[in-house]
Amino acid sequence: MPAIPISKQFNFPVSSANPIFFLGVDAGGSKTDALITDQAGTVLGSGRSGCGNHQLGAEAAARNIEAAVNQALHSAGLTKDAIAFAFFGLAGADRPADYSILRPLIAKLGFARWQIECDTMIALRAASRFPYGVVLICGTGINCAARSVSGTEIQIGGLGELYGDFGGGQSLANDGFRAVIRAWDGREAPTELTGIFLQTLNYPDVETMRDDFLDHNYQNVPLTVVPPLLRLAAEGDPAARAIACRQGKELALSAQTAIRRSNLQNEDFDVVLAGSVVVKGPDAYLRDIIAEEVTALAPLAKIVKLTAPPVIGAVLRAMDEAGTAVNPAVLESLKNVTL
Amino acid sequence: MPAIPISKQFNFPVSSANPIFFLGVDAGGSKTDALITDQAGTVLGSGRSGCGNHQLGAEAAARNIEAAVNQALHSAGLTKDAIAFAFFGLAGADRPADYSILRPLIAKLGFARWQIECDTMIALRAASRFPYGVVLICGTGINCAARSVSGTEIQIGGLGELYGDFGGGQSLANDGFRAVIRAWDGREAPTELTGIFLQTLNYPDVETMRDDFLDHNYQNVPLTVVPPLLRLAAEGDPAARAIACRQGKELALSAQTAIRRSNLQNEDFDVVLAGSVVVKGPDAYLRDIIAEEVTALAPLAKIVKLTAPPVIGAVLRAMDEAGTAVNPAVLESLKNVTL
Repeated sequence: MPAIPISKQFNFPVSSANPIFFLGVDAGGSKTDALITDQAGTVLGSGRSGCGNHQLGAEAAARNIEAAVNQALHSAGLTKDAIAFAFFGLAGADRPADYSILRPLIAKLGFARWQIECDTMIALRAASRFPYGVVLICGTGINCAARSVSGTEIQIGGLGELYGDFGGGQSLANDGFRAVIRAWDGREAPTELTGIFLQTLNYPDVETMRDDFLDHNYQNVPLTVVPPLLRLAAEGDPAARAIACRQGKELALSAQTAIRRSNLQNEDFDVVLAGSVVVKGPDAYLRDIIAEEVTALAPLAKIVKLTAPPVIGAVLRAMDEAGTAVNPAVLESLKNVTL
Repeated sequence: MPAIPISKQFNFPVSSANPIFFLGVDAGGSKTDALITDQAGTVLGSGRSGCGNHQLGAEAAARNIEAAVNQALHSAGLTKDAIAFAFFGLAGADRPADYSILRPLIAKLGFARWQIECDTMIALRAASRFPYGVVLICGTGINCAARSVSGTEIQIGGLGELYGDFGGGQSLANDGFRAVIRAWDGREAPTELTGIFLQTLNYPDVETMRDDFLDHNYQNVPLTVVPPLLRLAAEGDPAARAIACRQGKELALSAQTAIRRSNLQNEDFDVVLAGSVVVKGPDAYLRDIIAEEVTALAPLAKIVKLTAPPVIGAVLRAMDEAGTAVNPAVLESLKNVTL
């Protein structure tokens, strides 16, 4: 028996006579966003800083989270005690060991009511019609999480390549580079990736590109090659397609695993796609693979793209935790937020 | 028209009236070996030190190469001017940029006559019946090189994962670890690798193993898991077999590329397997894949394993360069060297 969509649960106007304020934070590997709204979803202030993933440096993460929060409070003209609920979606909130670092780190900020969750869960909340569902992140790295109908949350992967992950933008960029080298030295057939990489990275030929990387000991290929790689995959270049296909099937496998373990096979639910590769890139080829493999297991599942900033999911979770109704007008207002 | 095997080219006794001394050096990523023999292949002295690959630190490599050489000279009771020819097989001697670092580094040692080549070429010389052929290295990483009948040498890969390589012991160990994690979280089917990894790495369960790696930020899995992984592959465990099969096919692809680019398809020649994974491990499964794919392209090719220390190839190359005959007795003597 499917639950009522969140957007249909409440259908009354929000009173602005007694404004209530919510803080949402989305702390990721490349940036941290903080957003303050009232109960109508009207934005009052926002802040942005750098990496907020404690796994990449706990001190820097604490500093960046605090900076984004203070900037949002300042621009809203509010103090911490005015915030009814503060919700933190944190990349790197994976295991109990992470929470034992993160809880004191967030407690120090001094909010009366607050909660932490993995950033996957705010992405789910930001775009899913239901409280349950699956979220697939494909940004610099990958991650997957699900919430079952009864509210149990699980995470599949998201801890890095050694722990079984494959993919994300950096992996796609490096795999494209590898394909260009292998085509050049004869291990693989020629590929149109060669022209695209030389043009995007500004080298006259493959040997010069390879030597420049070796001479400078570059470890990663710039992510600017990812959109043209995905475009070539859609156009049918075999090498580009092999890379994109492996990525799509890997994301689909994570989603299938999450669906099975959360018993969502027979539910009507959303699989939320988030992260720069699936949101900003030419993502049709990846999305088609994911849709095909996911619906083979869960025929009622819908693939939806999170186009709004994920931090709105943290604001929505703050409203949920405070017991504040989220009606369609609030959702609509938040989904149009640009940061 | 195949050439006469090296072992058949000379067939006269070596005179020991006027002993001539040769120095061979094999500088690799984990250790550097130096070996001094006379023209009969009798060992007079040897030395061993640490990493001799300048790409992993030029100063340490210079220090280690010099230490191994001096130890060999000391134990032989010889000075540098007694060495007729010194031959250096150096891991990391890949490109002109490497040679411009390595030539002055080796020149400083003060030998009258010396030469540098990539360590792949001494492995080829140590085990091939002919001066031409293919060598496949599968140690910590992988490499492949070939010499054509006319003497042209090429290298396929060997520069690392970003430059198109796949495999080697570290890669196999990490891929096995990934398979255990993926079986545990439900992304893949159960595998017997799980029991083998927990036993070999001494953990009670997968979660404890994963958490210990995360908590200590371990980047690499100990190489002790590689032999049992290859054994499980031979026994038919699907996850172990997928990893070993990919490794075997990748080595075969490198060999095929080298064969095509060196025009060896119709020759009688050896494909020399060297490196700890294919020499020390239970390597039958890998070797069968390589043999099948290589002989499909080059029906007369023979797969041979380099079981002697590769440094004997450097001694043989020193003899070649000095114009000293290498007869079967010399070869036999060197092939029985243990270090």
